[in-house]
Amino acid sequence: MNRVSTVASCCSHRTDTYLLRLLEDDCPQLDLTTIGLGIEKAEGVVTAAFKRKGIVAGAMLAKRLFELSGASVSVYAEDGASLAAGEPILRAEGSAAALHAVYKTAQCVMEYACGIALRTREMLDAARAVSPGVQIALTRKHAPGTKPIAYAGLRAGGGIVHRFGLSDSILVFDQHRVFCEDFDRSLKRLQAESPERKVAVEAGGPEEALGFVRLGVDIVQCERFSPEALAAFCSKARRINPRLVINAAGGIHAGNAAQYAAAGADVLVTSWPYFAAPFDVKMRFSATRLA
Amino acid sequence: MNRVSTVASCCSHRTDTYLLRLLEDDCPQLDLTTIGLGIEKAEGVVTAAFKRKGIVAGAMLAKRLFELSGASVSVYAEDGASLAAGEPILRAEGSAAALHAVYKTAQCVMEYACGIALRTREMLDAARAVSPGVQIALTRKHAPGTKPIAYAGLRAGGGIVHRFGLSDSILVFDQHRVFCEDFDRSLKRLQAESPERKVAVEAGGPEEALGFVRLGVDIVQCERFSPEALAAFCSKARRINPRLVINAAGGIHAGNAAQYAAAGADVLVTSWPYFAAPFDVKMRFSATRLA
Amino acid sequence: MNRVSTVASCCSHRTDTYLLRLLEDDCPQLDLTTIGLGIEKAEGVVTAAFKRKGIVAGAMLAKRLFELSGASVSVYAEDGASLAAGEPILRAEGSAAALHAVYKTAQCVMEYACGIALRTREMLDAARAVSPGVQIALTRKHAPGTKPIAYAGLRAGGGIVHRFGLSDSILVFDQHRVFCEDFDRSLKRLQAESPERKVAVEAGGPEEALGFVRLGVDIVQCERFSPEALAAFCSKARRINPRLVINAAGGIHAGNAAQYAAAGADVLVTSWPYFAAPFDVKMRFSATRLA
Amino acid sequence: MNRVSTVASCCSHRTDTYLLRLLEDDCPQLDLTTIGLGIEKAEGVVTAAFKRKGIVAGAMLAKRLFELSGASVSVYAEDGASLAAGEPILRAEGSAAALHAVYKTAQCVMEYACGIALRTREMLDAARAVSPGVQIALTRKHAPGTKPIAYAGLRAGGGIVHRFGLSDSILVFDQHRVFCEDFDRSLKRLQAESPERKVAVEAGGPEEALGFVRLGVDIVQCERFSPEALAAFCSKARRINPRLVINAAGGIHAGNAAQYAAAGADVLVTSWPYFAAPFDVKMRFSATRLA
Amino acid sequence: MNRVSTVASCCSHRTDTYLLRLLEDDCPQLDLTTIGLGIEKAEGVVTAAFKRKGIVAGAMLAKRLFELSGASVSVYAEDGASLAAGEPILRAEGSAAALHAVYKTAQCVMEYACGIALRTREMLDAARAVSPGVQIALTRKHAPGTKPIAYAGLRAGGGIVHRFGLSDSILVFDQHRVFCEDFDRSLKRLQAESPERKVAVEAGGPEEALGFVRLGVDIVQCERFSPEALAAFCSKARRINPRLVINAAGGIHAGNAAQYAAAGADVLVTSWPYFAAPFDVKMRFSATRLA
Amino acid sequence: MNRVSTVASCCSHRTDTYLLRLLEDDCPQLDLTTIGLGIEKAEGVVTAAFKRKGIVAGAMLAKRLFELSGASVSVYAEDGASLAAGEPILRAEGSAAALHAVYKTAQCVMEYACGIALRTREMLDAARAVSPGVQIALTRKHAPGTKPIAYAGLRAGGGIVHRFGLSDSILVFDQHRVFCEDFDRSLKRLQAESPERKVAVEAGGPEEALGFVRLGVDIVQCERFSPEALAAFCSKARRINPRLVINAAGGIHAGNAAQYAAAGADVLVTSWPYFAAPFDVKMRFSATRLA
Repeated sequence: MNRVSTVASCCSHRTDTYLLRLLEDDCPQLDLTTIGLGIEKAEGVVTAAFKRKGIVAGAMLAKRLFELSGASVSVYAEDGASLAAGEPILRAEGSAAALHAVYKTAQCVMEYACGIALRTREMLDAARAVSPGVQIALTRKHAPGTKPIAYAGLRAGGGIVHRFGLSDSILVFDQHRVFCEDFDRSLKRLQAESPERKVAVEAGGPEEALGFVRLGVDIVQCERFSPEALAAFCSKARRINPRLVINAAGGIHAGNAAQYAAAGADVLVTSWPYFAAPFDVKMRFSATRLA
Repeated sequence: MNRVSTVASCCSHRTDTYLLRLLEDDCPQLDLTTIGLGIEKAEGVVTAAFKRKGIVAGAMLAKRLFELSGASVSVYAEDGASLAAGEPILRAEGSAAALHAVYKTAQCVMEYACGIALRTREMLDAARAVSPGVQIALTRKHAPGTKPIAYAGLRAGGGIVHRFGLSDSILVFDQHRVFCEDFDRSLKRLQAESPERKVAVEAGGPEEALGFVRLGVDIVQCERFSPEALAAFCSKARRINPRLVINAAGGIHAGNAAQYAAAGADVLVTSWPYFAAPFDVKMRFSATRLA
Repeated sequence: MNRVSTVASCCSHRTDTYLLRLLEDDCPQLDLTTIGLGIEKAEGVVTAAFKRKGIVAGAMLAKRLFELSGASVSVYAEDGASLAAGEPILRAEGSAAALHAVYKTAQCVMEYACGIALRTREMLDAARAVSPGVQIALTRKHAPGTKPIAYAGLRAGGGIVHRFGLSDSILVFDQHRVFCEDFDRSLKRLQAESPERKVAVEAGGPEEALGFVRLGVDIVQCERFSPEALAAFCSKARRINPRLVINAAGGIHAGNAAQYAAAGADVLVTSWPYFAAPFDVKMRFSATRLA
Repeated sequence: MNRVSTVASCCSHRTDTYLLRLLEDDCPQLDLTTIGLGIEKAEGVVTAAFKRKGIVAGAMLAKRLFELSGASVSVYAEDGASLAAGEPILRAEGSAAALHAVYKTAQCVMEYACGIALRTREMLDAARAVSPGVQIALTRKHAPGTKPIAYAGLRAGGGIVHRFGLSDSILVFDQHRVFCEDFDRSLKRLQAESPERKVAVEAGGPEEALGFVRLGVDIVQCERFSPEALAAFCSKARRINPRLVINAAGGIHAGNAAQYAAAGADVLVTSWPYFAAPFDVKMRFSATRLA
Repeated sequence: MNRVSTVASCCSHRTDTYLLRLLEDDCPQLDLTTIGLGIEKAEGVVTAAFKRKGIVAGAMLAKRLFELSGASVSVYAEDGASLAAGEPILRAEGSAAALHAVYKTAQCVMEYACGIALRTREMLDAARAVSPGVQIALTRKHAPGTKPIAYAGLRAGGGIVHRFGLSDSILVFDQHRVFCEDFDRSLKRLQAESPERKVAVEAGGPEEALGFVRLGVDIVQCERFSPEALAAFCSKARRINPRLVINAAGGIHAGNAAQYAAAGADVLVTSWPYFAAPFDVKMRFSATRLA
Repeated sequence: MNRVSTVASCCSHRTDTYLLRLLEDDCPQLDLTTIGLGIEKAEGVVTAAFKRKGIVAGAMLAKRLFELSGASVSVYAEDGASLAAGEPILRAEGSAAALHAVYKTAQCVMEYACGIALRTREMLDAARAVSPGVQIALTRKHAPGTKPIAYAGLRAGGGIVHRFGLSDSILVFDQHRVFCEDFDRSLKRLQAESPERKVAVEAGGPEEALGFVRLGVDIVQCERFSPEALAAFCSKARRINPRLVINAAGGIHAGNAAQYAAAGADVLVTSWPYFAAPFDVKMRFSATRLA
């Protein structure tokens, strides 16, 4: 039952700011109920556990939330661990004021993260069963404003980040090409100016995709190809460029991940795990000093 | 095709800060793709429309996102309106740099809001069919960090806000009571200190609930009562206090909303609409000046 | 002489941000005097005490200010306690740089809070002498930018918060009614959409007030009624709705609070305590290591 | 009826941030009353005017508040102008949502600023009647968190800023001297390191003050000298240093300002105007389009 | 003399926040000189021009600074353009208060950016003369807190961004390897988890570098190789992996850039342009309305 | 090897905000390299030392950066101390994740500060050799966004801050005078309104400068006078006002500082030290627990 340090699993600088914002949004002024009941100086303990077997995610975020409110916290399971119903995830101790200012937000953060982790893991397990090296990459289309939770969830589930946003990777969509007078020239410019990054292009069909391969792109993102079309494309494309990275994207979920993995994709690009329902985390209270 | 003013449907002061944060998170530095292709000064138009019939939500947030990036925007439909596939929601015009810095975030905001709106409306329609005055109240358990989107969604769907957080309403949970040596006395203190607010208490069963009614609470929140148990409780409770507000909470969704409404609840408290999948919004680009 | 924990008496998340802003405003760059004298590494102690008997308020805010600057602090009296001249409120220890960066702000915060506490208590004592259950509720009209200080003061004095702002309660003014084509219909809509909140309406005279009572509002706020008019109104109104909450507002202060309480008001709504002069707090310095 | 530009009378960069914070504090989420009544899209006009003759202050801050909410505003009087009851200060036009999100904050800002302006002007008029060149300098001891309002008020009243805080001027208190092993040496160091700033020292009595003058300080701040003691000190001190600036400080207000000015002080240092009660500003609403 | 739009050349969302912070740091409260002279409402024009031939950089940032203060601005030259002494870069018009609140910051921003641009261009011209496809990539080692200025400068000079920081690219240093029990295994893990990004490793000598090439890295960053050693390495390495990107890094500047380019580097990684002295920009004032 | 407390050498309130921003800019999301290698939970030590003899500056800022990331830090040398190559400046201990999130920023901060310190010291030594009381005052023209680093550097080198910005001192430029219809009158107003501050005016030549002396200014800033012209001016000016402070400004650096000091300037105003190249600080890593 060792405590896990914060910095190891989340970038703490920005995270504190983010978490404080969540707490402020939930309690911009006084906690009317706790103060009105006169219990703010009572003391107690909260323990978090699953109601059914699940994958821990967001535990370090939850821990930090309690710490920011002045509670002391122990975490008993690392993000990514599988836990049975009732096994403790974390335990926080402090005044009723501190615990009530935080616990629902902490619960909510873990429940959303665990929901994402579970779906990511399902996809990963399905896909790796047929293609051991395949990656599940989650997109930017998480619920806006949930980045740290989304990343905690996907990492706990074994996924990778497709791209954080516009400043960390190059991905050409049709929405870019519409502005290019001469796309081949524009693409050459992009490749020349980006020697240290891979250039990815989204393709709407196999023919288009092969064209991009011939132009020397590093990654082709195959949008809504059927598994069969993808398989055919993969064998042709790899003959042209054996180091090509092939992404399958568009409507991929746990139910069809294995098919796309079997078809030869290196990376399954998806936002499906983000839409998981929150995974229930029970927060059990007990008092150590009454009001 | 009139433009709708911002202030009317969202509290703009905080919203700008929120929206800028979304944009910064998505593009903390340069947009590598747009700049690498050399298209940043090209100009064009984006139009947003549903792929299938839906309820508009978050359109003012999307509009503001485009404005914050320097694009000019027209909105053609108000939040809450029902729109057919292909009917325009909004249209933004600006440089490729401005449009690409924003459009995905704007799309994402609308898709999450519209998903919430649709589920809220479903619940509302089901419940009002049997109980015209019933309200659907959405909880604090939205995805953390999505408050403005959650509220845009629920309002477009016809729901109300159960509570923003801890500072705007009084709701006593079992997690509070665990700290009270003498709950009746604590509750009296709470009632005395809160003459201008309603006092709500969550009850785990009908007996407990009747006890709270006898203590003079304004609202009883009935957690996971069966519809039958709720109906029985309602008739007893209203005899004690005809002005009592009765909330049904815990596992309520579009499928059982009518039953709980029929049982006599005044308010159906739920977080179910928040877990809707995003509702597809198509963003169509066209160029007016090539790079 | 026990130390009191921070979280128990103030919502620490937002408060730190607020207090840091006060310190930044007062010392945006270097402390020219302390550095110029070359004393920044000297060490010492500051003790705070009243010059005459008063009510402690803002002590936890002052404590936190010193902590934010790196000093170590003990607090000897809780907010709300009555203290004689010279009795210690708090004691901070640290470098001259740390103490000088903070002490005037800490002093100022306590002096304003204590001034408000004293006036609140005066009103409360006067009113409760004739009506033991009456509440003193302080309005939003504190000096802009002083919310945490205003609330520390009013709570120490025994007052309650009338409303934090626009998002936590419903209060209809004439300034709202001017926009309603049919006020009765608008009010019905408001009542229907707000089952979990009390609806308050401000009335400019007894006739108008009775009209609102008949429309079923939960609270009538009687603006500038004479005590006699209020008394007459109360007896009529309570016959219509025995659970009605009656607020007296407008020009109420320690001098007339008893009269309004005697007239039957449940709540005396006032901003008068906010305009108190700061209540003197002496900050005594001694050095433990010279420069 | 010309509009006055913002930048001319307030440093707008920081001010916007400050004003937005006031608005957020007052309306962190939705405006429950306006939305509940269904009037948010109605439109109207607010006009601000005094109830009795006063000095305009904070009008530009009020204007900016309305603008930040999307209203359009005209200002009819500059800060510092004397206005009769009923004469318009400003007029704002917009949706009911925009006007209600702002007007009380705007009113509050003006009322506090106008209260400060009036007291500053009273002191100034009293002091200048006997000493035309004397200055009224207001201290850092305004209500914490009100800096922009305090400065708008003091400037409108004709006062000057004593010091913004610790980073813009040098003022040695007894609280500094307690840390100096050899104050003369520390003071020499301070003077040597500060060739571009005046060095001020606070003195508790005439003998001490003369000592500081002999050490070559630029300003002596005479704390709680009687007017007679001050007059005697002035004549002695000016013989030593004709360019010496003499501040009178401690308990100075409109009632004794003339005496201290007559005694020979160059600057009357005071915080008394900050404790003025808000000066009533009437906000009159009318609707131009009903809900 | 067309105006250039903001969004095209800088990511405006974050930039506004950054620029406002610069203005606040420079003018946290009132502008004592402008106000003391009584000239704040005078009006005038500022024109910016070089004192000697240079490369424009940061002009859009300067423009935005003036706009944020309420001045109206025209920009006459795009970033990257070469301009003779005296040719106008931009022209701002507004009140003396607005212009003085901004002009020095605007000047400073342009001068630092132009200095960086010039050195970048020098390096680029030298290197491209011998190797037309070579890129100059600037590192993270700009002056801390100057990111937007550094990027404006390097882009105007024709450079590219080596990496924004730790979240947008993969670069393994010796400081990472010290933590790996088995580096080959760690590197494989890194490659497997990063299919969409290039993996770069810094090497301290040719042997080490060849080892990394054999492990399949995408980029080798050759730290402080002599040009001769680099040339020898390049020919060996490209035989192993023809698509390898070879970075030369460590002590590269305009004086030796051609040698490293000639040796076969694809990218010259440098921070040398950041240490350029500011390039003089003259800000000429004229009044259009006197105080 | 004592630890030095933070507050003694930097104003910590604002500094934390500043430093966190640097860390966020460098690592807005995850550290791809550290996480990809799987080393985030390894543990180790970093030691900082000069490569050649230098002056320590920014050590407290570096310490705070490591602390903000969760590392524990010891500092072995105070800012301003002279240290030989290899002597330890500081030592930080923590997880690989914590150390990698910070060390490059910490290094960068120290290198820039140390470069500024060295140049400041060079100027000071040169100038004081001929004029022991002369001061080196550094201007506002540091790289925008580097204020805390610039001040750490200049103070370590023995310089003073000329002015933080517009709100802490009065300095009249030609750019102000252009707006004055009658400058003598404007200056009188400024002097009258500023009894507690020195009034400085910049002069473009000796005749102009003498005119300002006759108008009673406290400081004349002599812009680009030759040393000879300055010497002549000093003797004339001091006859008019023996307490006059004479600043020499414009193009002053270590090479000519002695000449200007010898000519009689009290203060050498310069921005030259800011353009120093970073002074190399070596960060040596060792692992205490491998991944």
